[in-house]
Amino acid sequence: MTREVERVAAAIDAACLGKSVALVSSGDPGIYAMAGLALEMCEARRVAAVPSWTAANGDSDETGSLRVEVVPGIPALCAGAALLGAPLMHDFCAISLSDLLTPWEVIETRLDAAARADFVMVLYNPKSKKRHWQLEKARQIMMNHKPAQTPVGVVTGAMRSDQRIQVTTLEELHTAMVNMQSTVFIGNHSTRRYGDFLLTLRGYGEKYRL
Amino acid sequence: MTREVERVAAAIDAACLGKSVALVSSGDPGIYAMAGLALEMCEARRVAAVPSWTAANGDSDETGSLRVEVVPGIPALCAGAALLGAPLMHDFCAISLSDLLTPWEVIETRLDAAARADFVMVLYNPKSKKRHWQLEKARQIMMNHKPAQTPVGVVTGAMRSDQRIQVTTLEELHTAMVNMQSTVFIGNHSTRRYGDFLLTLRGYGEKYRL
Repeated sequence: MTREVERVAAAIDAACLGKSVALVSSGDPGIYAMAGLALEMCEARRVAAVPSWTAANGDSDETGSLRVEVVPGIPALCAGAALLGAPLMHDFCAISLSDLLTPWEVIETRLDAAARADFVMVLYNPKSKKRHWQLEKARQIMMNHKPAQTPVGVVTGAMRSDQRIQVTTLEELHTAMVNMQSTVFIGNHSTRRYGDFLLTLRGYGEKYRL
Repeated sequence: MTREVERVAAAIDAACLGKSVALVSSGDPGIYAMAGLALEMCEARRVAAVPSWTAANGDSDETGSLRVEVVPGIPALCAGAALLGAPLMHDFCAISLSDLLTPWEVIETRLDAAARADFVMVLYNPKSKKRHWQLEKARQIMMNHKPAQTPVGVVTGAMRSDQRIQVTTLEELHTAMVNMQSTVFIGNHSTRRYGDFLLTLRGYGEKYRL
């Protein structure tokens, strides 16, 4: 979780010397993660990088360019959704509550827009030692548009030995244990609890009369 | 892609007879896919289903309930993002353009809200033989809020032998080849092209002066 810039720099240096280099990241490197920093730093260093699928089509690295392949993984939104059951069966959005690199006003605008338009919402980086008030502010914004009883799931340390799954409501979210390892799922109008699961309807029920 | 209800019914029937059953689905079963239908049908049949993590904590199936585990996979939004480089480095939303189970007015409201709030947007089910006008309508809505030169990626058949990756702009999206197997990625204000990649900035550049 630290020294990302140094690690990417070392990887690019080695790759430019002709080495095959793997840059390892947890979750999916393409969701709020290191794929972007790697490409940004290639660009900043004026490295000619080409996607591996381009290279496979004949544009090989004989030109001196770096072939870059991003290997997808399981992001926290998929791991958490799987543990909760099926909250992401309909349109959803992912919003990071970290205002370290994004102005809080932008984050508020997105929270408000997504709640008004009845998206299922996945909140990344909900809380840390230094950022303690953002989640409660987000909850208040969502309470303006979503019912207090909207089901909410909090998944912490998904798929790790100390994983913790909490199912609550928007009204009670402030009582849940949330930390840096948590991802928070807020339902849409059709999300409901089924036992310990969160279930968002796609509409099959109406169509097929289950 | 068909007979989902019949397949889920057969799986539940077998599980209720005590069999261990795997219901197989492409991509991630938790993103617009079969995890929801499976749980909806368990609920409709008044089957007591418990998450496998609950069972592991001591509430085993000795009570006669079904233990259900959703195994996450790589959804099209991750596979496509990986092929495009790093389009999902900041807040994004997934919207299905299929109006078979969702009123088009709801879809339009979400497209408009997400474009206004500068989300990166991932469009599922952009087009099929029967649904040919929705993508162009979505493009027009986004053109009201995003610049015409906003980078757009279209990934069709990701990770399959006939995969196709197209990088274009919002203005030119209507000229791209799009079908049922396609996922469409629309950038936010910071998304740019870097060679054949799409790159959405997180802000590292400003902070670390790359």
